[in-house]
Amino acid sequence: MARDADETRRLLLAAARVEFARHGLAGARVDRIAAEAGVNKERIYAHFGKKDQLFDAVLADSLAESAAEMETPAQEGFDAYVERKLTYHAQHPQAVRLLLWEALERPGAPFAAQQERGAAYDAKAQTLADMLGTDDTQARYAMMVGLALGTVEQAFPVLTALVLGDDADRQAFRDYVIRAAAKAVASRRLP
Amino acid sequence: MARDADETRRLLLAAARVEFARHGLAGARVDRIAAEAGVNKERIYAHFGKKDQLFDAVLADSLAESAAEMETPAQEGFDAYVERKLTYHAQHPQAVRLLLWEALERPGAPFAAQQERGAAYDAKAQTLADMLGTDDTQARYAMMVGLALGTVEQAFPVLTALVLGDDADRQAFRDYVIRAAAKAVASRRLP
Repeated sequence: MARDADETRRLLLAAARVEFARHGLAGARVDRIAAEAGVNKERIYAHFGKKDQLFDAVLADSLAESAAEMETPAQEGFDAYVERKLTYHAQHPQAVRLLLWEALERPGAPFAAQQERGAAYDAKAQTLADMLGTDDTQARYAMMVGLALGTVEQAFPVLTALVLGDDADRQAFRDYVIRAAAKAVASRRLP
Repeated sequence: MARDADETRRLLLAAARVEFARHGLAGARVDRIAAEAGVNKERIYAHFGKKDQLFDAVLADSLAESAAEMETPAQEGFDAYVERKLTYHAQHPQAVRLLLWEALERPGAPFAAQQERGAAYDAKAQTLADMLGTDDTQARYAMMVGLALGTVEQAFPVLTALVLGDDADRQAFRDYVIRAAAKAVASRRLP
């Protein structure tokens, strides 16, 4: 059964995303990824290099997918921007887990796709500057506020369950967070 | 050289905190903890049980310490509350790292000191309800906003560096976040 290189790459990234999201960089097993993808382990090295390079490729792939799915036009408000984040992350907890593994296992490492990633954040800052009518620096601060509020349930799941309660209405919480985010970045000061 | 049990426990918790913050639950090595603390490995099992129970004890110890150092009286504002968080976490990145390892490696596990932890959050919710003049539910939502904004640099260090820039003025960013947090939980809606 012949597979072309793009298809092999796609299968490997999908299997590697599950493995890295679950076990992190140190805990991930390349042979499990190969078996899950139905691809010879040697092909992984040929396509991606070492395990940490595969991790970087998985993270870049996940970030590109998130960015595409959460794209918010500048005409929409910051509330719509954060609402998309909250909904996306609730449905794709792996996306935040990969970022947390990066924080824990690769905090100071140079990483693949750094330039592409920086360029994506530059573009998002421009969108937010247009949306909020602020300068670039304030737009970047607002982006960080959106990130923090849009990922808190996935970054601190045990704490969230303890603070809100096991049977909490998570949608009511998210509605509060969306309003809070919009107030947080509004340029008018409250008295 | 005789040591009493409290001193042994203290040395073990200190060494284990460094090891778990750096390597997480799966990656931590009990023999490294024992060597660092200058304590026989068997004593760890006697004091704390298995490795995951030691992790829970370390996390509970770290949370108790954070709570004590960040205590904010209700007469102070939410800005002071978040400012303490930001300052504390910037100086103690291990505290957030332990919570992130919990998110990644123990998201659904029953954990030690769950009742004490829940009681500490209940007390903090009461303080915030008094501070903000809200009900218990809104106070818990506000606590989550403070958590999200007060930990974003430690939870997403690579992303933060890319978004803000390597030479960013982090204090200016924190000042923005403190104001943003206060606006986020203010009860008056912006027009």
